[in-house]
Amino acid sequence: MGEIMPHWLAKQAELKPDEIAIQEGEGRVWTFAQLDKASRQFAFGLLSEGVQAKDKIAILSGNCTDFIIAVHAASYTGAVVVLINTRLSESEIAYQLKDADVSIVLADEENAQVTKEHAWRKELRTLLLTEINKKKKTKLALVEEVDLDTGFTIMYTSGTTGAPKAVMHTYGNHLWSAMGSMLNLGLREDDKWLAVLPMFHIGGLSIYFKSAIYGMPIYMLKKFDEAAVLEAIMKRDVTIMSAVSVMMRRLLDELGNNCVPKSFRCMLLGGGPAPRSLLQASKEREIPIFQSYGMTETSSQIVTLAPGNALKKLGSSGKTLFPAQLKIDKPDAKGEGEIIVKGPMVVNGYYNNDEATSKAFTTDGWLHTGDIGRLDEDGSLYVLDRRKDLIISGGENVYPAEIENVLLNFEGVHEAGVIGIKNAKWGEVPAAFIVSDQVDTNTIKSNCKKYLASYKCPQYIWLVDALPRNASGKLLRNKLSLWAAEKLE
Amino acid sequence: MGEIMPHWLAKQAELKPDEIAIQEGEGRVWTFAQLDKASRQFAFGLLSEGVQAKDKIAILSGNCTDFIIAVHAASYTGAVVVLINTRLSESEIAYQLKDADVSIVLADEENAQVTKEHAWRKELRTLLLTEINKKKKTKLALVEEVDLDTGFTIMYTSGTTGAPKAVMHTYGNHLWSAMGSMLNLGLREDDKWLAVLPMFHIGGLSIYFKSAIYGMPIYMLKKFDEAAVLEAIMKRDVTIMSAVSVMMRRLLDELGNNCVPKSFRCMLLGGGPAPRSLLQASKEREIPIFQSYGMTETSSQIVTLAPGNALKKLGSSGKTLFPAQLKIDKPDAKGEGEIIVKGPMVVNGYYNNDEATSKAFTTDGWLHTGDIGRLDEDGSLYVLDRRKDLIISGGENVYPAEIENVLLNFEGVHEAGVIGIKNAKWGEVPAAFIVSDQVDTNTIKSNCKKYLASYKCPQYIWLVDALPRNASGKLLRNKLSLWAAEKLE
Repeated sequence: MGEIMPHWLAKQAELKPDEIAIQEGEGRVWTFAQLDKASRQFAFGLLSEGVQAKDKIAILSGNCTDFIIAVHAASYTGAVVVLINTRLSESEIAYQLKDADVSIVLADEENAQVTKEHAWRKELRTLLLTEINKKKKTKLALVEEVDLDTGFTIMYTSGTTGAPKAVMHTYGNHLWSAMGSMLNLGLREDDKWLAVLPMFHIGGLSIYFKSAIYGMPIYMLKKFDEAAVLEAIMKRDVTIMSAVSVMMRRLLDELGNNCVPKSFRCMLLGGGPAPRSLLQASKEREIPIFQSYGMTETSSQIVTLAPGNALKKLGSSGKTLFPAQLKIDKPDAKGEGEIIVKGPMVVNGYYNNDEATSKAFTTDGWLHTGDIGRLDEDGSLYVLDRRKDLIISGGENVYPAEIENVLLNFEGVHEAGVIGIKNAKWGEVPAAFIVSDQVDTNTIKSNCKKYLASYKCPQYIWLVDALPRNASGKLLRNKLSLWAAEKLE
Repeated sequence: MGEIMPHWLAKQAELKPDEIAIQEGEGRVWTFAQLDKASRQFAFGLLSEGVQAKDKIAILSGNCTDFIIAVHAASYTGAVVVLINTRLSESEIAYQLKDADVSIVLADEENAQVTKEHAWRKELRTLLLTEINKKKKTKLALVEEVDLDTGFTIMYTSGTTGAPKAVMHTYGNHLWSAMGSMLNLGLREDDKWLAVLPMFHIGGLSIYFKSAIYGMPIYMLKKFDEAAVLEAIMKRDVTIMSAVSVMMRRLLDELGNNCVPKSFRCMLLGGGPAPRSLLQASKEREIPIFQSYGMTETSSQIVTLAPGNALKKLGSSGKTLFPAQLKIDKPDAKGEGEIIVKGPMVVNGYYNNDEATSKAFTTDGWLHTGDIGRLDEDGSLYVLDRRKDLIISGGENVYPAEIENVLLNFEGVHEAGVIGIKNAKWGEVPAAFIVSDQVDTNTIKSNCKKYLASYKCPQYIWLVDALPRNASGKLLRNKLSLWAAEKLE
């Protein structure tokens, strides 16, 4: 048994009943008391549907307040929430629902048909988020305390190869993530966090846990729309936002030469290091960018770089949050090796998957991230690439991400994906797929020579309309390898 | 085993090496890297003195940076620190050192003689804080991770009756106390906490743990001096201070009609509810008073009242911190009963004292505080009095603290202590001892009638030069009862 504390939302309903929990960009405002009441009613609905503690309930929905209510309601019943990426294919969804032993799917109108029409599992029921009988009376009691060692959510890692693995977060993992973030960013009375990332990903969901733990209002947008986001930042007193690089680019275009208000104090950027051009443009517009590194297994960011160091330590993700530790495992002569992390926000393992667990986790709590990195003399982390994507050319380590970042800094290059190609002389050589409105690949090749050592320069550059990505937007390098094989036939 | 995290000070030396950890009001400034280096050297000194994990080391010293270095050093060796109140008598100190199995006492010059001269325990060694051999080399390794379930400090409760009980705090208790406080007060980049309370009490020591956990600077004053405290608030960018009512009174006198700077955002007030006059005067001088309730067993405050409610909810301590819970046990018809609390900052029990532990703690983690209280319709706590001090007069509950507060609001009354006196007709009646420059007890008696129900009015009022208090300044009501018996002989 872990530490016991009051149910988070119940506690905020006690401490700050009339303060704002969620401000829908498009609609109503929810106070903590209102959100708590709706979550309790939803929980009674779940209980009357036969949901019991430790049952697995899936949510298959776009961003909406009912999504969050369903999550809090599940915790009031003691059930575990399985968060499904709505962009997945039917067979991928079927796999996850089966693997996680899900009994009920809660879906929005748009996504309900996927699991309703296809009877690949008879005992599985799909209910609309809006149809849970919220008024059915039951004598069953709600769970008013949370045990930090108890499982709360399951998310599948969007593996770019192999079967997805179920990451089970405990209440403690989510709480420690929120604490670590607070110790890093501070917490102010006027804080309001803009949430626009998908709720089925850890980066999106964790914002709502921060709301329930800090007693902080969320400004919620269902989808990313640069105009709506900018309006929130400029006019709605938003102080913090979580984003990924592609959002930042669109936001900077929309912003033009304007600066953001001084009260906007943090743009928490995930999804890989940002290129210099983006950091420079952000600096000029007084957007304080906090680059970060994290993954589903670390319950959101675990390493963060303060804005003051953004350009000084270009490409770095910074240092680990207060409760966390990080080491480079088996570093080579240059200090490069696998990044391993530890801390109370790191999950204990994968659900129903001892093999994957024992492969990734040591007995004393270290997670092997599968990423290659190094630390500078100051202890700041530089993430180099996924270990399995490493290209070894003439005995030199070549990181696709490094080459991609250089390519992305070129005028007219919108997307870039780099892989290794077998080569008789060098073992492997780099090859690049790019999405660009600049059709002259020779110019790009000669530009590469200015910024990259010769063994890092792509030997092949192919223009394509789009890069292959998975449902989470992650580049599928194994697909690029197939494309390259076709090109070279 | 509990959650594992990096040693707090080591982590801050990594995250904020060059930022201020301690600014001595009278002397030098310590960065986190410097404080960490000194603590590690001190730890090597302890190891070379034979200190091992789980050993009990006592500190017997006034406030100074060496005190804090010794605490951090102990944690680098895995030893447990026993904090001794320097105001205790020799025999009280001897009792605590023996009860806690202390092997080494670390003392400052001023206090070293107490344990050095008196050979009541031969195996006990006393070393000066300044004489620990900081340079002796040892091959032993320091403890670089803390386990939240491990014991860190022991403090004896300043019991006003009976033998003192040893409260053992784990790392987790202190950490959760800091987290709960941060969730309540927020955390700003410019925060600087003024520390002047004795470090051997939880209210004083906990500030230094917050410093190591938040990465926040402390402005340290060895002793309370109103001029020095005011200088810190007015000119040294202090934003938060922990204080007790008597300090506040002296501070208000020193402040005159001036207001404190806007950047001073929190006066955290412990040690019982503050009278209206003090709250009113503070409000006029823009001092944001956060009244609080807590005890050694809750690792400092566990209930806090926001300044906006200070005058609206006069006498209330507010609501429990986010991770904590509070209930009134066996409430009477008026909703009054014993205050019980629960949460990860509440200790598990008393060291080496199963009897006291089983008396005060339930198996599911609730601590019986021994205080009587009630909750208003909003859930805010009003602490009425210690259960054992309750006076029952004609079947009515009479709380000495309520009468004392009324007396203290009278012009010229400096101190007041109320007890119950056996009475043939009513069972008990209240009697008051007061320290006052107003010798007319009849005026006081008639004033009482204006503010108190007749059964609450003291039947006896005795003027004395001073009230009997223990080393922590707590009123000794059992002593008052002896005085009353003499007066009535």
